[in-house]
Amino acid sequence: MLKGIPPILSPDLLKILRAMGHGDEIAIVDANYPAESAGPRLVRLDGQSATDVLDAILGLMPLDSYVEHAAFCMQVVGEPDRVEPIMEEFSSIISHHETGFDLGSIERFAFYDRVRSAYAIVQTGETRLYGNVLLKKGVISPDDK
Amino acid sequence: MLKGIPPILSPDLLKILRAMGHGDEIAIVDANYPAESAGPRLVRLDGQSATDVLDAILGLMPLDSYVEHAAFCMQVVGEPDRVEPIMEEFSSIISHHETGFDLGSIERFAFYDRVRSAYAIVQTGETRLYGNVLLKKGVISPDDK
Amino acid sequence: MLKGIPPILSPDLLKILRAMGHGDEIAIVDANYPAESAGPRLVRLDGQSATDVLDAILGLMPLDSYVEHAAFCMQVVGEPDRVEPIMEEFSSIISHHETGFDLGSIERFAFYDRVRSAYAIVQTGETRLYGNVLLKKGVISPDDK
Amino acid sequence: MLKGIPPILSPDLLKILRAMGHGDEIAIVDANYPAESAGPRLVRLDGQSATDVLDAILGLMPLDSYVEHAAFCMQVVGEPDRVEPIMEEFSSIISHHETGFDLGSIERFAFYDRVRSAYAIVQTGETRLYGNVLLKKGVISPDDK
Amino acid sequence: MLKGIPPILSPDLLKILRAMGHGDEIAIVDANYPAESAGPRLVRLDGQSATDVLDAILGLMPLDSYVEHAAFCMQVVGEPDRVEPIMEEFSSIISHHETGFDLGSIERFAFYDRVRSAYAIVQTGETRLYGNVLLKKGVISPDDK
Amino acid sequence: MLKGIPPILSPDLLKILRAMGHGDEIAIVDANYPAESAGPRLVRLDGQSATDVLDAILGLMPLDSYVEHAAFCMQVVGEPDRVEPIMEEFSSIISHHETGFDLGSIERFAFYDRVRSAYAIVQTGETRLYGNVLLKKGVISPDDK
Amino acid sequence: MLKGIPPILSPDLLKILRAMGHGDEIAIVDANYPAESAGPRLVRLDGQSATDVLDAILGLMPLDSYVEHAAFCMQVVGEPDRVEPIMEEFSSIISHHETGFDLGSIERFAFYDRVRSAYAIVQTGETRLYGNVLLKKGVISPDDK
Amino acid sequence: MLKGIPPILSPDLLKILRAMGHGDEIAIVDANYPAESAGPRLVRLDGQSATDVLDAILGLMPLDSYVEHAAFCMQVVGEPDRVEPIMEEFSSIISHHETGFDLGSIERFAFYDRVRSAYAIVQTGETRLYGNVLLKKGVISPDDK
Amino acid sequence: MLKGIPPILSPDLLKILRAMGHGDEIAIVDANYPAESAGPRLVRLDGQSATDVLDAILGLMPLDSYVEHAAFCMQVVGEPDRVEPIMEEFSSIISHHETGFDLGSIERFAFYDRVRSAYAIVQTGETRLYGNVLLKKGVISPDDK
Amino acid sequence: MLKGIPPILSPDLLKILRAMGHGDEIAIVDANYPAESAGPRLVRLDGQSATDVLDAILGLMPLDSYVEHAAFCMQVVGEPDRVEPIMEEFSSIISHHETGFDLGSIERFAFYDRVRSAYAIVQTGETRLYGNVLLKKGVISPDDK
Repeated sequence: MLKGIPPILSPDLLKILRAMGHGDEIAIVDANYPAESAGPRLVRLDGQSATDVLDAILGLMPLDSYVEHAAFCMQVVGEPDRVEPIMEEFSSIISHHETGFDLGSIERFAFYDRVRSAYAIVQTGETRLYGNVLLKKGVISPDDK
Repeated sequence: MLKGIPPILSPDLLKILRAMGHGDEIAIVDANYPAESAGPRLVRLDGQSATDVLDAILGLMPLDSYVEHAAFCMQVVGEPDRVEPIMEEFSSIISHHETGFDLGSIERFAFYDRVRSAYAIVQTGETRLYGNVLLKKGVISPDDK
Repeated sequence: MLKGIPPILSPDLLKILRAMGHGDEIAIVDANYPAESAGPRLVRLDGQSATDVLDAILGLMPLDSYVEHAAFCMQVVGEPDRVEPIMEEFSSIISHHETGFDLGSIERFAFYDRVRSAYAIVQTGETRLYGNVLLKKGVISPDDK
Repeated sequence: MLKGIPPILSPDLLKILRAMGHGDEIAIVDANYPAESAGPRLVRLDGQSATDVLDAILGLMPLDSYVEHAAFCMQVVGEPDRVEPIMEEFSSIISHHETGFDLGSIERFAFYDRVRSAYAIVQTGETRLYGNVLLKKGVISPDDK
Repeated sequence: MLKGIPPILSPDLLKILRAMGHGDEIAIVDANYPAESAGPRLVRLDGQSATDVLDAILGLMPLDSYVEHAAFCMQVVGEPDRVEPIMEEFSSIISHHETGFDLGSIERFAFYDRVRSAYAIVQTGETRLYGNVLLKKGVISPDDK
Repeated sequence: MLKGIPPILSPDLLKILRAMGHGDEIAIVDANYPAESAGPRLVRLDGQSATDVLDAILGLMPLDSYVEHAAFCMQVVGEPDRVEPIMEEFSSIISHHETGFDLGSIERFAFYDRVRSAYAIVQTGETRLYGNVLLKKGVISPDDK
Repeated sequence: MLKGIPPILSPDLLKILRAMGHGDEIAIVDANYPAESAGPRLVRLDGQSATDVLDAILGLMPLDSYVEHAAFCMQVVGEPDRVEPIMEEFSSIISHHETGFDLGSIERFAFYDRVRSAYAIVQTGETRLYGNVLLKKGVISPDDK
Repeated sequence: MLKGIPPILSPDLLKILRAMGHGDEIAIVDANYPAESAGPRLVRLDGQSATDVLDAILGLMPLDSYVEHAAFCMQVVGEPDRVEPIMEEFSSIISHHETGFDLGSIERFAFYDRVRSAYAIVQTGETRLYGNVLLKKGVISPDDK
Repeated sequence: MLKGIPPILSPDLLKILRAMGHGDEIAIVDANYPAESAGPRLVRLDGQSATDVLDAILGLMPLDSYVEHAAFCMQVVGEPDRVEPIMEEFSSIISHHETGFDLGSIERFAFYDRVRSAYAIVQTGETRLYGNVLLKKGVISPDDK
Repeated sequence: MLKGIPPILSPDLLKILRAMGHGDEIAIVDANYPAESAGPRLVRLDGQSATDVLDAILGLMPLDSYVEHAAFCMQVVGEPDRVEPIMEEFSSIISHHETGFDLGSIERFAFYDRVRSAYAIVQTGETRLYGNVLLKKGVISPDDK
């Protein structure tokens, strides 16, 4: 364990977050997501909720302000506009860490495709359906420090 | 996820439990344990308590009845007889799954040495000190099924 | 061996079943199937019948209810509608584990193609011809547990 | 599958039997044996009985006539002279394939030690306790063919 | 060495023959064939003739009866109908092991292309030119044993 | 780059610091140190001073309070009590991050030996001679957070 | 360290510069660049400025005189003609090492694409935005030595 | 060293020459050639001239008589018909080893493309520009020995 | 195939002979020898006689003149002085290639031990018992060429 | 090629020289030396003389001034005090690069033993016997630059 680093950020996940650059994407997915066959390198956090993982990651990683949306959830099949409670939690956590970022949404199979070219996936133990969120990393400019 | 398998048992951990044989040992250790340098193959379950992991493992894995103790905790440094609350929880979980097994204890550095030849280690996110327990796998005889 | 897990589920197969997610597919094939060159990761269960393996897998793995068919056999060459006895056994085993699932069928070379993108293959020792079945994994929702 | 080769001899096991030379040893062990941690390369034949595997192997592999015993079972703990029914089956299978070979026996922990330097282990699905047998490969002389 | 297995079938070649399934192909090629760059896994049998290797392989491996030709040689460049003596030997060996199989032939560069997707290649020490033959594996049905 | 993490902590170094447990040791060494042959996994930070690296690491990693010294420098050859200016800087940086820790010292070849069993080495671009320091990781107890 | 070689050229970077041939390209990128996912082999020089790295590399590596531009920076998004101070430093360092080479510029996403087929990337700790430069290696002719 | 084998043929190069078959190609390139990124397996002979290496290789390897040219140099950029002195040396060495083979030539970028699919590259220390030659291996027929 | 190199010297074997230095040893063993478990890197030449392989190797490799014996056979068990016909053939082949070298002999288990530290083993298809010979490589001095 | 770096220093050798630290050793050995089995990582420079390689290495690498001898040759067998001409060349090259260093000598088998723990070996094409020299790397102090 380290001072000031949330302990659910495992060694591999910390390395990945640090190694990602401007525009690289990371997906936080639920326990039913086909993550092992999705393509990108995989970090398992079995037993953690997706919302706790999102909160820990955004404590360290900036979002990309060069694009319209830097965070996306997966749309409910057949009801693209439906907002599940877990999606509202995702939005609220994002607002808590960064200002000016809305949560976008992507149709189920388009979400799978986009994740295929992400930098990494974190498979959580989230049991709520649609507990998936994709993040695009931003820049830290010399003024930020 | 699978029917009837606790979801905190990750793919690698399930494989390990199934692959272990009579007399092989597995250690469940806390978040401060030097697990990456301990030697055996390592499964990380960052964020889980050691007691939840023990409970899930004993739901599947029999303990060894051929030896005096098949489960050990690490003794408090300088107070070998002291029983921490988490040790009492370990005992209670063991009793819930199998009858006739007491929790033994091993001095800190002897514990490190014994773990070095274990089959596997599970590093949990347990933050309570002395949250370590070592298990020795038993046999399933034709009559057990 | 583990409590309550059929022993023909080997360590690798258990890991694979646990690691698969929603929509991932696994093929159980007979002893003549060209499984080593088929592409996906391979588990060998030489000497087991395909029906015993199907029964053991469905004891743990849910089928996908989001699609028309979540289980397929390979059609007899030249007689696509013929139902071999082993296909009837497959259907009966599926009905025993889950309700509302019919066994679909796929032409021989289309079956090969589909298996190419499966998550895994289990090569059994099944000597009956056409002893092949493909399964699509489903979801466990929070209400299921 | 191949003509005249028992199908329970998997590709890896066939290769191992062919690669072994004079004096190399192979262990056939039961489902509870700690085979993954035993040291030598491992072939799994989950679900097969140890007796069927012994019978198939001796159909191809000669035993070593240069030593007193070329086949050993593991002694019952505390009763070194007890002969379990499965040991009698082992003896009978050996006699069926080769003449002049008795089944020796080794104490449990000495058996573990000897297996550690074997060429290979075959883990069967044998559920009967003490379903373990160790074989030493012999020579095929020019006159044998 | 093993009882009843021709000793020129090396450990790797035995494994390959056993692992191949219905429709998988294996090429036996001469000493000048560009086998290392051909693509498939390679077994070297330097010093053996292609005809001895063909004879040993067909003693174990069935040919595919579902297709028009299950064995092909490479056509002489510029004389597609010419029959070299070694091709007649190939035909004769095939007839000796299986009935009803003619030896087909393929143009040189088409032969290279087909070998590229074979399961394996055996490079012999055959010094006669055009000492190449491609085989397609068949099925062993329950009635065959 | 990440929020609040000094950018000289590279991805591999962050992973290592997070993965180390109670009692694991890490060495920060100068540009002349034979680090590639020293044994432990190596992180290169060519061009950084040893003092900047020490400062960044102690911002995240607790020192071990269970032992007499948790930080050591290498003694000047032939003058074990001599204190080089860089050693004073090391002491000062340690005092800035943690209270109650003195900087111990180890003879040159004993230092090499101890580093051999460390968890990791960081080779800096430090050009001042004797720019080496060894750290022993401590515990974060539930009360610390 | 070596005589006359700038110490920020790490072992891997020295090897890469020596191994590159006529026309091979190397990118020096800033701390926010998505370098780990960019494709080519990566050398990290966390904490170094891009300008110091450029200066050290050009001390050893000739630029390609067969093409119009042998060095490129990344254009400011939306302002392709804007010259950032760091770009002027790049130009000045190039002029200092070689005569007759102008610094070209490439649009952001075209720059990413070109780097994808470079021989190597050096990720520096450069915190100034647009701290990226791509170099094309030239030839040393017999007359040069 | 071996009897009668020129010592500049290193172990890897000898293996490659022996492993190549009819029609496989090998490139001998100069010290400026971008050989590490060219694709095929690479043997380095730093410090040797291209002409000495050509001479040693042709002492062992036959050229392909089935094609118009079995040896090619790279054309001078902009002067495709110019013959550099080193090209004349290449021709002379070829004539010394085999009769009836002219040295063909290929435009620079076409040469790069052709080398990409060669079996191997030998990077020499040749400092003369255009010190590159590509060879196509021939056949040894039973009559040759 | 190469000009003047016996074709039974496979690519790997040629590389090994060229890579060996003064004092390195190579064993040529018969088809029953436990070569896969013997330790050193292994080249298989299934189907070749040990005498043909010895003859081909001594055509290229010098023996060591700095020691009493540079070639050894394995003694017959129980009859250390017995000379099998194949041993006489070994002696005769050695005399044909080099003058002044006698064939030494080593007891069976001492032979196994010595082979364990050899540079390489060649497993032939030699079916005659005691078809094993160990060679120690010599030096080529500047005067030899 | 690079500006000012002797081209016989290959990419791997440059990396090794840069990676070595204070006290690490490198051996330059002749063409008969058993270098592949000697233990340390190996760089081949077939065809180069040992004296040219020594000269190129000492142009970059400092020798160790903390020990009595930082360079050793191998003694002639049976004549430990004999000085071969190549040894005199070694001495002369060392004197040309550094002052105050004598060439020590080591008995043949002690030389082999010492090389076993060296950092690297360079096998040259040196054909003169006793063309071996071992170097111990020194320090570059801040004042040196």
